[in-house]
Amino acid sequence: MAAAAAEVPNRRVILKRYVTGFPSEDDMEAVAGATHLVVAPGSTAVVLKNLYLSCDPYMRGRMSKHERPSYVPDIVPGEVIVGFGVSKVVASGHPDLKVGDLVWGLTGWEEYTLVPDARSLFKISHSEMPLSYYTGVLGMPGLTAYVGLCEVAKAKKGDSVFVSAASGAVGQIAGQLAKLTGCYVVGSAGSDEKVNLLKTKFGFDDGFNYKKEQDLNAALRRYFPEGIDIYFENVGGAMLDAALLNMRVHGRIAMCGMISEYNLEQPQGARNLSSLIVKRVRMEGFVVSDYFGEYRRFEEDMVGYLKGGKIAYIEDVAEGLEKAPVALIGLFTGRNVGKQLVAVARE
Amino acid sequence: MAAAAAEVPNRRVILKRYVTGFPSEDDMEAVAGATHLVVAPGSTAVVLKNLYLSCDPYMRGRMSKHERPSYVPDIVPGEVIVGFGVSKVVASGHPDLKVGDLVWGLTGWEEYTLVPDARSLFKISHSEMPLSYYTGVLGMPGLTAYVGLCEVAKAKKGDSVFVSAASGAVGQIAGQLAKLTGCYVVGSAGSDEKVNLLKTKFGFDDGFNYKKEQDLNAALRRYFPEGIDIYFENVGGAMLDAALLNMRVHGRIAMCGMISEYNLEQPQGARNLSSLIVKRVRMEGFVVSDYFGEYRRFEEDMVGYLKGGKIAYIEDVAEGLEKAPVALIGLFTGRNVGKQLVAVARE
Repeated sequence: MAAAAAEVPNRRVILKRYVTGFPSEDDMEAVAGATHLVVAPGSTAVVLKNLYLSCDPYMRGRMSKHERPSYVPDIVPGEVIVGFGVSKVVASGHPDLKVGDLVWGLTGWEEYTLVPDARSLFKISHSEMPLSYYTGVLGMPGLTAYVGLCEVAKAKKGDSVFVSAASGAVGQIAGQLAKLTGCYVVGSAGSDEKVNLLKTKFGFDDGFNYKKEQDLNAALRRYFPEGIDIYFENVGGAMLDAALLNMRVHGRIAMCGMISEYNLEQPQGARNLSSLIVKRVRMEGFVVSDYFGEYRRFEEDMVGYLKGGKIAYIEDVAEGLEKAPVALIGLFTGRNVGKQLVAVARE
Repeated sequence: MAAAAAEVPNRRVILKRYVTGFPSEDDMEAVAGATHLVVAPGSTAVVLKNLYLSCDPYMRGRMSKHERPSYVPDIVPGEVIVGFGVSKVVASGHPDLKVGDLVWGLTGWEEYTLVPDARSLFKISHSEMPLSYYTGVLGMPGLTAYVGLCEVAKAKKGDSVFVSAASGAVGQIAGQLAKLTGCYVVGSAGSDEKVNLLKTKFGFDDGFNYKKEQDLNAALRRYFPEGIDIYFENVGGAMLDAALLNMRVHGRIAMCGMISEYNLEQPQGARNLSSLIVKRVRMEGFVVSDYFGEYRRFEEDMVGYLKGGKIAYIEDVAEGLEKAPVALIGLFTGRNVGKQLVAVARE
């Protein structure tokens, strides 16, 4: 039988239980499975062979039990972990996708994924680029940096920009785009090695290791004696509170993420919100999926920057699906240097 | 001598010391003084006879010692307290102001005030209205409500609007303007009497006494089962945290004030800021002086609303300059019902 002949082994990583507090490798498990590499006649589903999986901080939030739905699907105990990835189409009933097409979008942490609704997939236009870049600089994190800086924070030449988690997937791109816009850019990161990258590789004007600062308010005052026009917020907690004290009049805080708070039962909170009033600051949260309509324009711009050497990019690649849980958890201790991803297959 | 003849007694209220924590009547003191009712030849100063003085929550902030200047002048120990008021010009070297003109703007807590720079004064166009209204619905608090709701929060028909401190000077106007815009409006206040006013006098759809609620999150969920589009923020603290949990996607928080925090050594802080991201909420602080250029348009609109019976207004008048300290302090315990002001003279 044709269908039986097309059944192949399919290793997958499942969530074992809802996570509370800090996630551990033991919350996830690699298990054996099998899948068919064909789609039913009349279906518009596609089957993907996963090449690269993306480890992103927002995934932690999806591993907790929620009362209300969010903008991304929950990850459910006993089921495969869902996240962004780069994949090759190996079977398709969808008119716009054919076998062999390369795509990025929501997929499963497994070797092969059946995607019932291909609308969440983007075809990769530039397969001459390293395909793994579509988990980062050319994918969701890159677009996040782009819209956060340009559309939410409305960066313009001469702005003083502070980026936290600045060597991460989003931060490194946000900072470089700010430099290209003509801004003064300082980033924070959690190791001297990362801070060095900011200054030598990514062209930031300056950077500091937040773990070495006794007083984050004083640190920001040192780097921004005239204040901050734009805070590209990736971490929350004490850094947000310090940034609030250092904002300039009519400053903007683009709220991209708050990784320091994702594993806390009770968030630390921000005490200096009255700065928003005194300095007339706009603090705005955003979610990249609201901007997916701008992806093609972004992709062309970013491919141009990469080919022209105007944007540098660093990724941290874990080899093999089994490494995915450890790689994901490493985001929350800052183990990764650059964009964390997992290579499952190289075509 | 003419100058000596023009010298008159001038009682004044001074700040005795910088305030820390909750202010007390004893932080201020009424003292005797004298002033000249003439301006020097060639000067563009004006001398005002003060009729009504405004008690506003922002003034508390100006009574503390500050490292950095703010958008309003500090109030300095040993000197007269500065605030908004309604006054009559009794001497003028300024080409645009003549004796007998009625004005509102920054003045002193005293019977007569010499204003060196008359640019901070607005001539009163509608002296047929109760003059005290120019400390509230037709003055700074009214304009605050107007720009906060229309320009910062961008209220539109059908929005669900929550106003805290809703019977206060700004809240009562913000809520009524939202009703005129076609919004669903619920307010919170600190007594059943005030909540009753919201519903019977100001036409709010509903209101609640926050002091009687065990769980502010549950209270807001009860009044806004579909969530809040606009939070007009006057109080900060626990109410802000509850509102954050109840915002709708693309909601707006107009940060007008945080009266619950003004007397705290350490602000309570907001723990639910990740809602800004999940719900793509814009939280924006504003300061009314940035919008003084819109005052004339506002004044005409609001006079029309008042004359047409479309906006109701309640004020709480303390009689006599000596009552000003107690009246100001009462704002922070919620003793006032409606806009708190002090009548110094009635012309």
